[in-house]
Amino acid sequence: MRDTTAYLALGSNEGDRAAQLQRALERLRAVPGVHDLRASAFRESAFVGDGPPQGPYLNGVARLRTTLPAHALLGVCQALEAEAGRKLPAPRHHPRPLDLDLLFYGDEEIDTRELTVPHPRWHQRPFVVEPLRELGADVEALPRWRRPLSFETAAEFAARCSTWHAGALVVGLVPTMGALHAGHASLLRRAREECDRVAATIFVNPLQFAPGEDFAAYPRTLAADLRLCAEAGVDAVFAPTVGAMYDPEFCSHVATGSAAETMEGAVRPGHFAGIATVVTRLLALARPTRAYFGEKDAQQLAVIRRLVQDVGFPTAVVPCAIVREPDGLALSSRNVYLGADDRRASTVLFRALASAQLAFRRGERDRDALLQRAHAVLATEPRAEVDYLELRREHDLRPLPAGAIDGGRMLVAARFRDGVRPVRLLDNLSLGAAGT
Amino acid sequence: MRDTTAYLALGSNEGDRAAQLQRALERLRAVPGVHDLRASAFRESAFVGDGPPQGPYLNGVARLRTTLPAHALLGVCQALEAEAGRKLPAPRHHPRPLDLDLLFYGDEEIDTRELTVPHPRWHQRPFVVEPLRELGADVEALPRWRRPLSFETAAEFAARCSTWHAGALVVGLVPTMGALHAGHASLLRRAREECDRVAATIFVNPLQFAPGEDFAAYPRTLAADLRLCAEAGVDAVFAPTVGAMYDPEFCSHVATGSAAETMEGAVRPGHFAGIATVVTRLLALARPTRAYFGEKDAQQLAVIRRLVQDVGFPTAVVPCAIVREPDGLALSSRNVYLGADDRRASTVLFRALASAQLAFRRGERDRDALLQRAHAVLATEPRAEVDYLELRREHDLRPLPAGAIDGGRMLVAARFRDGVRPVRLLDNLSLGAAGT
Repeated sequence: MRDTTAYLALGSNEGDRAAQLQRALERLRAVPGVHDLRASAFRESAFVGDGPPQGPYLNGVARLRTTLPAHALLGVCQALEAEAGRKLPAPRHHPRPLDLDLLFYGDEEIDTRELTVPHPRWHQRPFVVEPLRELGADVEALPRWRRPLSFETAAEFAARCSTWHAGALVVGLVPTMGALHAGHASLLRRAREECDRVAATIFVNPLQFAPGEDFAAYPRTLAADLRLCAEAGVDAVFAPTVGAMYDPEFCSHVATGSAAETMEGAVRPGHFAGIATVVTRLLALARPTRAYFGEKDAQQLAVIRRLVQDVGFPTAVVPCAIVREPDGLALSSRNVYLGADDRRASTVLFRALASAQLAFRRGERDRDALLQRAHAVLATEPRAEVDYLELRREHDLRPLPAGAIDGGRMLVAARFRDGVRPVRLLDNLSLGAAGT
Repeated sequence: MRDTTAYLALGSNEGDRAAQLQRALERLRAVPGVHDLRASAFRESAFVGDGPPQGPYLNGVARLRTTLPAHALLGVCQALEAEAGRKLPAPRHHPRPLDLDLLFYGDEEIDTRELTVPHPRWHQRPFVVEPLRELGADVEALPRWRRPLSFETAAEFAARCSTWHAGALVVGLVPTMGALHAGHASLLRRAREECDRVAATIFVNPLQFAPGEDFAAYPRTLAADLRLCAEAGVDAVFAPTVGAMYDPEFCSHVATGSAAETMEGAVRPGHFAGIATVVTRLLALARPTRAYFGEKDAQQLAVIRRLVQDVGFPTAVVPCAIVREPDGLALSSRNVYLGADDRRASTVLFRALASAQLAFRRGERDRDALLQRAHAVLATEPRAEVDYLELRREHDLRPLPAGAIDGGRMLVAARFRDGVRPVRLLDNLSLGAAGT
């Protein structure tokens, strides 16, 4: 049975602190599979944190050899914390009669729901670093947790996600084409709140661009994107080249149904098949528990919902609300290409949708009257060349019959041609949703 | 922190057995998070098993209350076994100074690489059942491990596979259309040997049958299939209805490349797209570590290899050798429909392939001469209406140019019309492979 060297951080700031740390060390020495335990001196450190006012901590580090698996050692530590009177799960930043953290378990990198080693913040804590030095550890050589991990090959990315699944972690995926803005940041933030691990992908997918569209010109800002991912607490970024994503003999394209042949699908033939294909690949690689998509691309969202249900990925598709500029323009990576006049004109899309929403709230229920209301606003802005304006059923975006409706989502696409290059903008709004 | 009642089986058949069991109980009582430990009397039972001759076991059962997670308790038990001198991992059926098995952990069902509770065989062991009774357990009410678990809905099947992944188990998938025969059994056996958990799927996939093909007539023998799965040690069977597999609005079909448009793809247009679509769905649901496919459907195997690489499922595709009748006929669920004369005639397929293989081994390297050799054999059997005979590159089954070859796989398809209904049979043989 393999012996592993483990380091534990010990802390207490409630009751007889030294006695509690000593008692924990004694109890640990009696655990089957634990031997050669050696502890540093205990040091006092002021409490720093957001909790209620509380006394200083007494801290130390113990080194031990063990045949216990890391999670078994963790379980024993938690039992000791409970014995000392600590409630588990413990409220964050409250006083603790005993706090035991596993810092290192050999040189293993463990990333599960209950346990992350190396401890992600050990090197930021003098009350850990100094005792480690006292115990003879080569502090500079000890491993640190890096985040985000960046992957360029599909196999490495998939392997990392697999280790997360093997640790029973909730994995969130945020697929993007990069050129990240505050809209993407809101997706990443939400994923960070709802998931144990967050993976972002950055890939401008050639399959969803038709010849003559802006694949080559699509903005690419990888360095800034990686910084934004780091700030958002993303755990892994997959940013493959086209070659790493699709090998030259790639032929497994995913079809989408007739619902994907209207609106964007009509303007951009093959667009949604390209999206379905790349999303299938990303979901297969990462198998996220939850996948985050912005509502700005509402039809894409409907296509992906259908796809996930059809193929059977055990993934919850999470729609995220549109983030807007103060004047209402929906954030888009392509907004940077708008000329100044087009930028001013572009607010017409949101104004048109909002006027229909207002009319709906005031009692207008006739489909065509609502569309007419929005068309009238669009007509005030000659710079906007409207591709389509539609009022569709929520979620699956099926057509609504003429006559009275009891809700729906209005979608618009328009071109602006005055800037660095022509830009197509999309926007949509739920007529029934609260707030604008 | 939640307290759970756990039961441990204790055993020893080496050294001072009673002292070792007593020592283990004492050590357990000192473990943080373990309390209220109560043990049955120890009983002697003869050794039964395949190992070397060895003395009888002394057995008992302990009941305890614990705040330790199940895996932590397991880790402590393993540390105790190691202390007692047991080598881990222990050779099966060798004498053991101490053997501790977790029988129950509350009413939890745990299925991970290291631990399965309820213990799958507890109820077959009198030396466990009697001490459980002595400790006051209601033996009839205690849970048993059922295998195979049978699933009809995709969501339940996927959820079960997810729990396996969360337990870091190697998951094997054997997709079938049912009507299982010895060929399927060989896939299941291999999966059982190579994987921690084996899932079989039984689904006659309408998408891969063209109108006028034998979808309705394809043999269906679900009850017998489930028995065969149970005998093969399959852990889960997914046998959905068509409606549970594809909802009425299903539209996410997966395309295959031009390589899938020859041979079977030419005879059966849409066949491989139907296979790619169902296999994508099955792989997305189960996300197997390994997926097993028979080499009899060699072109299907090539299509699936391509698919798995393209989509990026982290799944190893495992090809399994053709199983044949004593006279050489490749096993197929459709063989049951052959009339007696056709059954006799059907061996011509294997004889044709074997004659080309023999010629290759004797030095013939010319592609067309090898094909001619097989054609000559096929021509001796007028009952066989040959659809195609091809000599292709191994694995991806790309066409081989005319002239000298250094290996390849010969594939044949033929129709026989004399039985209950017309039957198409496939066969193939690697010219370079060892043995026939």
